[in-house]
Amino acid sequence: MGEFYLLFDVGGTDVKAALATADGELLHVLREPTARPEPGGDGATAVLEQLSDLADRLGAMSAQSPIGVGLLVCGLVDAEAGVGLYSVNLGWRDVPLRAMAEQRLALPVGFGHDVTCAARAELEFGAGAHVPGGAQNAAVLIIGTGIASALVVDGRMVLSGGYAGELGHALVPGGLACPCGATGCLETLGSAGAIARRYYEATGVSGGAREVFAARAQGDHVAQRIIDEALDALSFTLAQLAASVAPEVVIIGGGLAQAGSPFFDDLQARLAARLSYHRLPQVLPARLGADAGLRGAWLAIRDRMREVS
Amino acid sequence: MGEFYLLFDVGGTDVKAALATADGELLHVLREPTARPEPGGDGATAVLEQLSDLADRLGAMSAQSPIGVGLLVCGLVDAEAGVGLYSVNLGWRDVPLRAMAEQRLALPVGFGHDVTCAARAELEFGAGAHVPGGAQNAAVLIIGTGIASALVVDGRMVLSGGYAGELGHALVPGGLACPCGATGCLETLGSAGAIARRYYEATGVSGGAREVFAARAQGDHVAQRIIDEALDALSFTLAQLAASVAPEVVIIGGGLAQAGSPFFDDLQARLAARLSYHRLPQVLPARLGADAGLRGAWLAIRDRMREVS
Repeated sequence: MGEFYLLFDVGGTDVKAALATADGELLHVLREPTARPEPGGDGATAVLEQLSDLADRLGAMSAQSPIGVGLLVCGLVDAEAGVGLYSVNLGWRDVPLRAMAEQRLALPVGFGHDVTCAARAELEFGAGAHVPGGAQNAAVLIIGTGIASALVVDGRMVLSGGYAGELGHALVPGGLACPCGATGCLETLGSAGAIARRYYEATGVSGGAREVFAARAQGDHVAQRIIDEALDALSFTLAQLAASVAPEVVIIGGGLAQAGSPFFDDLQARLAARLSYHRLPQVLPARLGADAGLRGAWLAIRDRMREVS
Repeated sequence: MGEFYLLFDVGGTDVKAALATADGELLHVLREPTARPEPGGDGATAVLEQLSDLADRLGAMSAQSPIGVGLLVCGLVDAEAGVGLYSVNLGWRDVPLRAMAEQRLALPVGFGHDVTCAARAELEFGAGAHVPGGAQNAAVLIIGTGIASALVVDGRMVLSGGYAGELGHALVPGGLACPCGATGCLETLGSAGAIARRYYEATGVSGGAREVFAARAQGDHVAQRIIDEALDALSFTLAQLAASVAPEVVIIGGGLAQAGSPFFDDLQARLAARLSYHRLPQVLPARLGADAGLRGAWLAIRDRMREVS
């Protein structure tokens, strides 16, 4: 029969949960909206109750009990300390999520940040697995409603107490006022959410970034301008990285990555035009899709079990 | 008597050389212009001859022979491979400097990048030694004619094959055409050299950045604008770092750091205004001054001797 893990990827919108083999094969996957607390209630407690319920349902699908849990959450995370530092969406600040989950589920919990671990999975099993010699210096950007990211330098994930890899809130020229409180953040121009929102504001036509790319392909000048500004902003931030941590590869996932090879070719060309003697990163599409988080949760519990044993 | 090291800090303008004790105390320091090759000659050979000559002169000052050499060079460096990748000033590309120096001087050579190692020394013995708990995540910028820099994340120096920490050539809004070939590099606005040059271009008055700061203090509007633009550019790049690798401290050395506490207060305030939930780095002046490179060379040979023994 082998051993089983429970995997959870807790995002601001959805929770994904899976029962997986010790080798990381996903046997059953559940997905549902992330639980919200009752008015006056506590975000962490609401999520832990949801995880416990999901664990019961997944546990019932297997003859054997799971032996460990991989738990990823969004927001700012101190993975080493096992603490959710801050999440606007889920409504917590400085909560010891790993310890709370271990108590609630009575299993060892490998804990981490959703995008950092999804990025590790992309590097280990996805686009990074196809880089000759491995990606020792890499950036992974997940571009959807916002932009989340993770960095690897000299073969190690950059943590910096949980504050590293917040590229969605790196400043770009011409960037707009951001809900985070700063002005000029990359995700105000370069995210799929920003492209759709700005197109709607300019034209009254609603839809996703995909529709804006389609409009551009048909010669729509507003769509052209908004996508140009998004690509300029993204290439600016990638050029900054080339001068600071010098990634060899940049892996882009999320909704915007589905814009396909014209998007990647254009971004690569704009990045090349911005750089001189710097190391030019190769911009690659992510390969794992929606399961990257669950694969990352598997990495988190795999590492945790090695520590425990 | 104890054991002695020879230390060399080879910059684009000067070579500094020292005889040091095994504990890092500098006993004798020599400084002279960096050797240039004969027309058609080779930059690396000219520098190695100079080092050999300096070694003879320093060796003559001690009764005992030195047992190791710390050698730092400017430009792009692959420290682990012992290779000078590229230096415009010194005229080399892909030269195995560590092996060449070991052969020429018949001693083990600890090899590294001048600013990276000076930054390590600042962190270990200088400003970083005064950070409670140590600076696990730090950036060091040496701002003079240009801007050189080094990054530490999660307690380790970022190398990325020698391409990391090139913050002088990170892009900033409004940045100018740079000799490196890119447009918009930080050092076209934010370096001491840029401040002096831009003031000269605007007014015909020559001098250093120090004189431009003095002019600003007397109400000179041109000086005010140029220094404002320099501080905006520097705070922009530091804000980028806050979103990518999230340093806790930023240590600034070189000529511009001598502008004193109004400069640091102003830069800190502009940086704070750019950030929101990011970790706000503390901006500190460097403490080691002109010897930071030689102290860094000592770190390079200390590490090398540990490897050898």
